[in-house]
Amino acid sequence: MRPVFRTRGTVGTFTPVHPIQAVRWAPDCDAVRIIDQTALPERFIERDLHSLDEVCAAISSLAVRGAPAIGIAGAMGLVASLGEFDDQSLDELRARIAVHAQRIVSTRPTAANLAWAVNLVAAEGTRPFASSDEALHAMRDKADALRADDAAMCRRIGELGEALLADGARVLTHCNAGALATTGIGTALAPVYVAAEHGRHVSVLACETRPLLQGARLTAWELSRAGVPVRVITDGAAAGAMRDGRVDLVIVGADRIAANGDVANKIGTYALALAARHHGVPFYVAAPTSTFDATIASGDAIPIEQRGREEVATIAGRAIVPNGVPIENPAFDVTPAELVTAIVSDRGIHRPPYRFDA
Amino acid sequence: MRPVFRTRGTVGTFTPVHPIQAVRWAPDCDAVRIIDQTALPERFIERDLHSLDEVCAAISSLAVRGAPAIGIAGAMGLVASLGEFDDQSLDELRARIAVHAQRIVSTRPTAANLAWAVNLVAAEGTRPFASSDEALHAMRDKADALRADDAAMCRRIGELGEALLADGARVLTHCNAGALATTGIGTALAPVYVAAEHGRHVSVLACETRPLLQGARLTAWELSRAGVPVRVITDGAAAGAMRDGRVDLVIVGADRIAANGDVANKIGTYALALAARHHGVPFYVAAPTSTFDATIASGDAIPIEQRGREEVATIAGRAIVPNGVPIENPAFDVTPAELVTAIVSDRGIHRPPYRFDA
Repeated sequence: MRPVFRTRGTVGTFTPVHPIQAVRWAPDCDAVRIIDQTALPERFIERDLHSLDEVCAAISSLAVRGAPAIGIAGAMGLVASLGEFDDQSLDELRARIAVHAQRIVSTRPTAANLAWAVNLVAAEGTRPFASSDEALHAMRDKADALRADDAAMCRRIGELGEALLADGARVLTHCNAGALATTGIGTALAPVYVAAEHGRHVSVLACETRPLLQGARLTAWELSRAGVPVRVITDGAAAGAMRDGRVDLVIVGADRIAANGDVANKIGTYALALAARHHGVPFYVAAPTSTFDATIASGDAIPIEQRGREEVATIAGRAIVPNGVPIENPAFDVTPAELVTAIVSDRGIHRPPYRFDA
Repeated sequence: MRPVFRTRGTVGTFTPVHPIQAVRWAPDCDAVRIIDQTALPERFIERDLHSLDEVCAAISSLAVRGAPAIGIAGAMGLVASLGEFDDQSLDELRARIAVHAQRIVSTRPTAANLAWAVNLVAAEGTRPFASSDEALHAMRDKADALRADDAAMCRRIGELGEALLADGARVLTHCNAGALATTGIGTALAPVYVAAEHGRHVSVLACETRPLLQGARLTAWELSRAGVPVRVITDGAAAGAMRDGRVDLVIVGADRIAANGDVANKIGTYALALAARHHGVPFYVAAPTSTFDATIASGDAIPIEQRGREEVATIAGRAIVPNGVPIENPAFDVTPAELVTAIVSDRGIHRPPYRFDA
């Protein structure tokens, strides 16, 4: 297995390194190389996805997760899965594009980013080409452009958001909006990585993020691999840490941002925003412009997905909720714009009053 | 196994029943019968503790938990463990009282209630008696009086607190301050049980309470066994439920209450109090007078126990935090008195400004 990050020189007491890469091409570009996030943090496993079945299984099992990473992995996976066939005619290729794209998109039917990225690359392949090889090349270039755009978006958020982090800043974050959720250096964690690269002493308090524990499992893993000091707390301990004066700012990602600046993000975000406001701790959201949904006037119009019982009621196969006792498992909550100090996107730092037009 | 609760008649659509009994005498009073809380909610197991080893193991393994329940189980266990010896002289009994009491108290050295109850019953046995049988009888009576006092304290809190629950009230609670934590009907849950007994339609939203999940495992179990509608949510979902208008009041227990009304309780309580204040939801604390510590002026003086890494970092033997990443695991947080709408004790409903004198 090849090393996925390198040391970047020592600055002060730090040894900042590149964060991991969640989704990239395998060396011959014939497969998508992903980090299997279902195995973290116990095991670090990279998988090369060649076939349609491998691509679909990786997405549906959440081996790849995070809206940007899923979209790009699906688009790159479409190309890889089509490249498996030798000597195919253009007609054969086009038939396969339709079948493969449809199957990949259907693995996560509500993931808007997945459908968007896969369909863009599929459309590229149906332009007039002289051969199936030429078409495949164009599709690979398109998928790679999407990947590069995503990584550039992360870098831009990091560079803009870095200004929010003083030397010594103690950041609290929730869930995983990091390198593992994108093809770059993440969104909420991008400013942290850029500040660390520049030798600033930043540290992170990661809320474990029940029910799926992405903060404990993923954020803690990628930050510690990159040499950024990180500690894990339960979600209920965050308010106490703020009261103790041990949090300088909160940065979280977003699943969707309404025109008025209301933010839908992982369940538990709203409680952090309330505690931050109470203690005068700045509360920042870092998210790509693609997260802004100008067609939605306010957070009240954002539908909240209710997820399955097993995520809350069982852990590692053991029942933690008695049989027959119902659970509630909203995937997201909505933080009203009035609690959001600023939103960092790839276009700039937005401050209230927010008004995101179509 | 004997049934531990009975149906109490049908009122409306409810079938309110007695809650379970966490600690009581076995039928011949020669053992302490406990519900093994380490097996819940997967299995309902009662254990009879006869010997000193059995008593100590039950307390140190958390098979018995909750300050009042631990204290009474230790005191009753002291008597049961001494009753194992036939034909002992008064001198032999007294020597054993000292040894057994010391070992039981040392199983949880920071549990003030345990030392208090065990030492009271031990002292009882050292009064002048004509025989060891007589001394043991007096000790059993003393332990039983403590048990009855505890149950009566719960009942009184329930009867006083019931006034806070309108018909249809939707209560949010945290951790387990229920029947499983006492020898009666609990503290925070006592008003719920009394209201349900009286035919009121009350329902409970139980925060799962990371890291040890007492809400999901224990509160959900005992309420559902008693026929009280209960749903489980992650701790991070509570603020969203309040924002949705689905919580009428919060009731939690307390580990210690300072003279000014600041409340130390299970980690996560403070975040609930902040969210409740923001949404105008009343926030009540229900706790026995013995929880009031007039020697402590404010919550700032309450020491916060830091507990072990494994509680946060592993679940059911699986690592959820990467090796080498530190965690923080404060057992409690402090909710300032200004966020507490009222405190329900066995002496009455206390409202601000709080001033608990020695």
